[in-house]
Amino acid sequence: MKNLKKLQNKLPLTVRLEKNKAIIVDQTLLPSKLEFIELTNYQECIRAIKTMQVRGAVAIGMVGACGITLKALSCKSEGKQQFLTRLATTAEKIIAARPTAVDLKHDVMEIMSYAEGETIEEIRKNIYNATKELIERSYQESIKIAEIGNKIIPQKANIQTHCNAGSLATVWLGTALAPIYGAYVSGKKIKVWVDETRPVLQGARITAWEMQQAGIDYEIVVDSAKGYLMSKGMVDMVIVGADRIAANGDTANKIGTYPLALMAHEYGIPFYVAANYETIDFKSKTGKDIKIEERDKSEITDWTTFMNRKIAPTNAKAFNPAFDVTPVKYIKGIITERGILNPKKLK
Amino acid sequence: MKNLKKLQNKLPLTVRLEKNKAIIVDQTLLPSKLEFIELTNYQECIRAIKTMQVRGAVAIGMVGACGITLKALSCKSEGKQQFLTRLATTAEKIIAARPTAVDLKHDVMEIMSYAEGETIEEIRKNIYNATKELIERSYQESIKIAEIGNKIIPQKANIQTHCNAGSLATVWLGTALAPIYGAYVSGKKIKVWVDETRPVLQGARITAWEMQQAGIDYEIVVDSAKGYLMSKGMVDMVIVGADRIAANGDTANKIGTYPLALMAHEYGIPFYVAANYETIDFKSKTGKDIKIEERDKSEITDWTTFMNRKIAPTNAKAFNPAFDVTPVKYIKGIITERGILNPKKLK
Repeated sequence: MKNLKKLQNKLPLTVRLEKNKAIIVDQTLLPSKLEFIELTNYQECIRAIKTMQVRGAVAIGMVGACGITLKALSCKSEGKQQFLTRLATTAEKIIAARPTAVDLKHDVMEIMSYAEGETIEEIRKNIYNATKELIERSYQESIKIAEIGNKIIPQKANIQTHCNAGSLATVWLGTALAPIYGAYVSGKKIKVWVDETRPVLQGARITAWEMQQAGIDYEIVVDSAKGYLMSKGMVDMVIVGADRIAANGDTANKIGTYPLALMAHEYGIPFYVAANYETIDFKSKTGKDIKIEERDKSEITDWTTFMNRKIAPTNAKAFNPAFDVTPVKYIKGIITERGILNPKKLK
Repeated sequence: MKNLKKLQNKLPLTVRLEKNKAIIVDQTLLPSKLEFIELTNYQECIRAIKTMQVRGAVAIGMVGACGITLKALSCKSEGKQQFLTRLATTAEKIIAARPTAVDLKHDVMEIMSYAEGETIEEIRKNIYNATKELIERSYQESIKIAEIGNKIIPQKANIQTHCNAGSLATVWLGTALAPIYGAYVSGKKIKVWVDETRPVLQGARITAWEMQQAGIDYEIVVDSAKGYLMSKGMVDMVIVGADRIAANGDTANKIGTYPLALMAHEYGIPFYVAANYETIDFKSKTGKDIKIEERDKSEITDWTTFMNRKIAPTNAKAFNPAFDVTPVKYIKGIITERGILNPKKLK
């Protein structure tokens, strides 16, 4: 899909590894400012993950992998065994930066599996190359998802998405947003409805920024607007990302995805999930096996202010589940780099 | 329902008329502070409406009625005709403060219909008494809704509501929250799920404050949490207010009500609307006849900040419909001061 190159000047690479440093977009400054930061050691990688300068499961995993590489490149030691021990300790520290992030652990462990070789120098080279390849593979997967997903988008379509499964959640282009970018560079006339995505507002803050940056027509709506929009015929299809897909096709994604799928079903609007194939977790038989993270209530009560005042009473009680599970019956297809899968027949 | 008196020290009267002044809760200071303001002339009533010191259709109507009364009490004129003309001009100005507010116009016109009498003094007395009675009638209607609605609430119930159809939207107790107050003072074990209600956050800011003030167990959740909560069996019933009910039972209410009703239907959870009988608009045959107000996008993009930063890119596009229409098939009953109505048989 050569046309995707058009977006290269508009959408930055979220994570890239150069000699002795990783360069990432500082997402805490968005949507106000686009700035990059250089991470020169693993501690800076951990800090970037903890402070949410990098976010999105895939992108976090890449920064974790870079952390190991930066340690390998700089680590001074009295022999191979000490070197490997120090790498292993670093890997543990990086994984602990976000203990519930499956991709982070997965990617760090993958890179650690390349910590082999005759000499320290050879191990360094293997690790560096493995991280480069991991990032490149992720990049290529998103491009594949863009190509494959584009095929099901009509010439003219109003597409609703939720949260940010976009370029800034991956190395480039994203998962849910990749088909949208594919459609856009193919010259299709598309308009994107961007859900705010409370409580952390990744839609309003990040997805809207990506759309604006790419030059794609969009409007932000509150998460509650789905009934209004769909009842008025203003949505032609929905594409969302996934945090984890169970073997039976039930899909865990950012809170609010399930009501969106249910409303789409009410109006016969096709509802697609776009994700890397490895998001399918065959160990989880159904959605019931997926544990939903409950995050701190302060995300609701304290992170946002309204007219410069608190949005909730002092000591307000709040409950903050971060994800919900969309039953497979409401999902038309899962767009992956391997093709569009029937969610009822993943095995 | 004598037990409701227990709440008198906790929940303030939202609007009351005393000699020469109206006293209202300043809702712009909530949820941080409870303060009252005295309105001593009609201009101050208009300002309170425009600046949202008073909000909620019923409460706004009452302040409009107070505005006419304050003008009548203070207006100096060279005769009855001039007096009546000045009153009529004042009525127009008050109605223009919020041109789409049906209740405001309705209440102001009702009070103006009492602008009759032999002398100016007699007209003044008639208007003053009519406003006092209007406020008292509204107060009594909410108490009736509390009594009637309480009958359908089980001894133990998790109740979800949306927006604020509470005490602060009326003279006292509210509509959707009135049955909840009724259940609470009856000693029932209830817990209330309070939707934040983006974009203006009346749930988090106002309903949560009312619950905390009354001592009722509650938790704030994002509007998107409905699928999670209901799929986990954490919601037993839903009660929401209404902005307008069509003759066929379709109900317009704050954006997000329809998705909430649809999700309740998915799990067989009873979904009730609570409203004053006069909210039923027999001139609107179905929900399609109800015009939905689209409000300024700044409510979404500018009124809220996240971590002290804008929640959307500079010049972000946003679409802000303020209400949606819940199809009658998802509504189990309409709780009014005249009883619980079958929404499919309103005529």
